[in-house]
Amino acid sequence: MKLLSFAMDGRESWGAVVGDRVADLGRALPQYPSLADFVGSADFACRDALAASEKPGPKLADITFLPVIPRPEKIVCAVRNYLDHHNEAVAFGMKREITEFPPIFLRVWRSQVAHNAPVVRPKVSDNLDWEGELAVVIGKGGRHIPEAAAFDHVAGYSIYNDVSVRDWQRHAQQIASGKNFVGTGPFGPWLVTPDEIGDPTKLRLETRVNGKVEQKSDTSMLIFSIPRLINYCSTIFDLVPGDVIATGTPAGVGFTRKPPEFLKPGDVVEVEIENIGVLRNPVVDE
Amino acid sequence: MKLLSFAMDGRESWGAVVGDRVADLGRALPQYPSLADFVGSADFACRDALAASEKPGPKLADITFLPVIPRPEKIVCAVRNYLDHHNEAVAFGMKREITEFPPIFLRVWRSQVAHNAPVVRPKVSDNLDWEGELAVVIGKGGRHIPEAAAFDHVAGYSIYNDVSVRDWQRHAQQIASGKNFVGTGPFGPWLVTPDEIGDPTKLRLETRVNGKVEQKSDTSMLIFSIPRLINYCSTIFDLVPGDVIATGTPAGVGFTRKPPEFLKPGDVVEVEIENIGVLRNPVVDE
Repeated sequence: MKLLSFAMDGRESWGAVVGDRVADLGRALPQYPSLADFVGSADFACRDALAASEKPGPKLADITFLPVIPRPEKIVCAVRNYLDHHNEAVAFGMKREITEFPPIFLRVWRSQVAHNAPVVRPKVSDNLDWEGELAVVIGKGGRHIPEAAAFDHVAGYSIYNDVSVRDWQRHAQQIASGKNFVGTGPFGPWLVTPDEIGDPTKLRLETRVNGKVEQKSDTSMLIFSIPRLINYCSTIFDLVPGDVIATGTPAGVGFTRKPPEFLKPGDVVEVEIENIGVLRNPVVDE
Repeated sequence: MKLLSFAMDGRESWGAVVGDRVADLGRALPQYPSLADFVGSADFACRDALAASEKPGPKLADITFLPVIPRPEKIVCAVRNYLDHHNEAVAFGMKREITEFPPIFLRVWRSQVAHNAPVVRPKVSDNLDWEGELAVVIGKGGRHIPEAAAFDHVAGYSIYNDVSVRDWQRHAQQIASGKNFVGTGPFGPWLVTPDEIGDPTKLRLETRVNGKVEQKSDTSMLIFSIPRLINYCSTIFDLVPGDVIATGTPAGVGFTRKPPEFLKPGDVVEVEIENIGVLRNPVVDE
């Protein structure tokens, strides 16, 4: 099942994709004001029956997408979690080692962008770079989640574009500054539940700018696996429903090119992940 | 005026300290469910009249303190923003330079701890270290706030103890991992509004463990000033009411001692800042 958040006629809701329409589950189940509330509930197990009992709602073409989880409590991002991306960064001159533990930073939800909505190049920089990533959405929360139980806590998989302002990211050792600009966190178009994703550890991922393939990899190349990331994060944080773990990006980002390539107004950036779909965003100037 | 968040009889509220009692403004002004909502409102300017018109509520001794802002949307923490702390870290062997821009990282609200509530030493580490800090609470939100206007966006000043799990902080270059454990972010006991703080750039700060002074400095020693931090953060983020900027800690943390000194169960850690008060927390094991 594909689950999404959307707006229509000034109302925010969430629902399931049924063919070319959306079952408006937010209207049918007001006890769950957001998709995050639903994926953390016991009723999430009954999602197929609930969607089937709902009459078809608006056409997918008529809704305004929202970020899959519009206001996640936490967005934890893995840093350089693909070996080929690590290697291109080292070749570029960055002094980093592969560590025993997953490097992570945090993104705030106000940086998020919906499918089809514009990524914003800030006034203060032209170093706007793409990072296509598989996003894991937490369903059942918890702390100290063992790796063996980690997949039980996953509500679904989606696509994140961890768009980065490279010069600001390098202001200091802490990169959160370049990873949190307003309008730089595309997240969508929907999440795909575990029963329909296939093997989440073997999904092809591709990032395209104006149709040109810039990143091409698959999720089998992760240095720190999804269960390891969930285990690590839940050792630190109380994970709660709707939390997002962005699993890192493969090689092919713009800043390591010679000369560097960055996103500019008028560009269209797409991230496609097998069995999920395409997250598409135009680029505009602030 | 001192404003705080508190719980009593299972209800969460917020109010003003009036002598040894609390004016329960959360009850009187239900249009502001939280202190964050109030400090962002036009009525914040009328706080004195509102508190004066409210009959005295519970005794301060009878309430359960909550973190001043229980669920800030963002908690932005400045990294090594006192020269003496920078120097002790470099002497310890950390390779860092003073940068042109303020280094920042993010903390999640679920890591927060109220005044009097226990700081939690996690199962996975005994490297629990104190960091007393002046916290700035944002009132009026905004983006691209010029330094000259920055103080207009401050609702008040409070105390943060940016308790850090040092070995986890050093898992990789990104320190968020050691700065976000559940039970490590004491924030309290209240905020003091700008009209009563005196000069926020000249406040004495002291951290004590079991009564022994460990950190002693004042806020005139900040490398990046409060207006500069607000300007920098608002270039990246949309600041909103209730957002918190923790301004960094002075010298005297535990990890740089030889041998290192860390917090252990049974300890009591206090951070005192002039014109604000004392933030006191016992330490327990997870």
